[in-house]
Amino acid sequence: MSGQLIVVGTGPGNPAQTTPEALSAIERSNVFFGYGPYLDRLQLRPDQRRVASDNREELARAKDALMTAASGEQVCVVSGGDPGVFAMAAAICEAIEDGPPAWRELHLEVVPGVTAMLAVAARAGAPLGHDFCAISLSDNLKPWPLIEQRLRAVAGAGLVIALYNPISRARPWQLGTAFAILREVLPWSTPVIFGRAAGRPDEAITVVTLAEADPNRADMATCVIIGSPDTRIIERPGQAPLVYSPRSAGERL
Amino acid sequence: MSGQLIVVGTGPGNPAQTTPEALSAIERSNVFFGYGPYLDRLQLRPDQRRVASDNREELARAKDALMTAASGEQVCVVSGGDPGVFAMAAAICEAIEDGPPAWRELHLEVVPGVTAMLAVAARAGAPLGHDFCAISLSDNLKPWPLIEQRLRAVAGAGLVIALYNPISRARPWQLGTAFAILREVLPWSTPVIFGRAAGRPDEAITVVTLAEADPNRADMATCVIIGSPDTRIIERPGQAPLVYSPRSAGERL
Repeated sequence: MSGQLIVVGTGPGNPAQTTPEALSAIERSNVFFGYGPYLDRLQLRPDQRRVASDNREELARAKDALMTAASGEQVCVVSGGDPGVFAMAAAICEAIEDGPPAWRELHLEVVPGVTAMLAVAARAGAPLGHDFCAISLSDNLKPWPLIEQRLRAVAGAGLVIALYNPISRARPWQLGTAFAILREVLPWSTPVIFGRAAGRPDEAITVVTLAEADPNRADMATCVIIGSPDTRIIERPGQAPLVYSPRSAGERL
Repeated sequence: MSGQLIVVGTGPGNPAQTTPEALSAIERSNVFFGYGPYLDRLQLRPDQRRVASDNREELARAKDALMTAASGEQVCVVSGGDPGVFAMAAAICEAIEDGPPAWRELHLEVVPGVTAMLAVAARAGAPLGHDFCAISLSDNLKPWPLIEQRLRAVAGAGLVIALYNPISRARPWQLGTAFAILREVLPWSTPVIFGRAAGRPDEAITVVTLAEADPNRADMATCVIIGSPDTRIIERPGQAPLVYSPRSAGERL
């Protein structure tokens, strides 16, 4: 019997946003690795074993999962959202590249999911309707000056920006600094969306301007979307405003 | 009876990648607007009516859909992938902003889906594992010089690039020019993924270097992912290589 490893994205947290492909992958696995709160969302059978770990131990978790798969188990590594976006798929690849040759021979599958920025955008309108980027604000794995440089480059080029990992107890000042940098490049009227727990019962979607953007509105479960100079707000009577980025940009030649 | 409009993303085309939320939205709608091939993927009841249109008529389709919803129908506007990424959600918002006040009072819902770059990335490994962007290569709605400027900015800043709408009969030279520009900024050894019809029976995922990237490999159903200078290829015996972008970037301070 040969083991295999499936890296699954369960989507933003609303069970109706988990794909049948992800559920099927979970169904046919017998050992589960992941951050505890993500594993808690699964409905596992008594014969399915779970190995929870902290969300800062991605590489150690990846190695454990690969070792277990190499021993013949059907292993599932669980990410929220999409496993390829600031999540476990890259950690698994890193571990394979640095690991024993046998790990390259394992059957590896990655099952995509709805990533947070798509779920937040859907609740706000269509802020990602034109060119956009996704940037992790965590300086645990890259130097802060590189993050600043990237923010200036993408805002200056007119891309909408989705910020992942905007803030945590260990990284309290980075989001405020990012807003300050963006206020040097973008109009202060640019829409900013704080999208917390999109699609879940505790969802909170807030739309403010860049001038008003207060980093304390964000927590670890928040994806922050900052518009481009083209992004617009449509006020609606009795409903939340719509935020969208038009399909066209710049002067037509 | 009051009408409503739901903009649904059905995912990249594999039914197992369509969320239950999208299926439920389709189930409770009675008139469907969309590009013909996307509507063809739905299994509709006899009482559900479809209005197919060409893929270059997004704004006209949006207005038709809003008018129909305002007349009291339960309308579903269908996109492949995610409706918020270079798709119908932005066209609907544009039409609402320019339309009669009654359209702002409609119940509007956007249901997210797995967008093409996530499905392609999953099949290749984890090329979007670090900061990345999505850029439409279509110059129908923005001037070509702006696209060139954005490509230089994001490649220079070290972001992985997913190109949507890379090529069409009416836009035959843009992808080749984009590769030429990127060869001025990025190492020629940078991995390039041509991801065609990811997750569908006619799927074709090809990995080459930027030096070898031939625009003729792409068609309208292709999403092209160009790595950053950090993106790596892991060769595997008897299996397709893995392409991934490490979670860390730049010099650690």
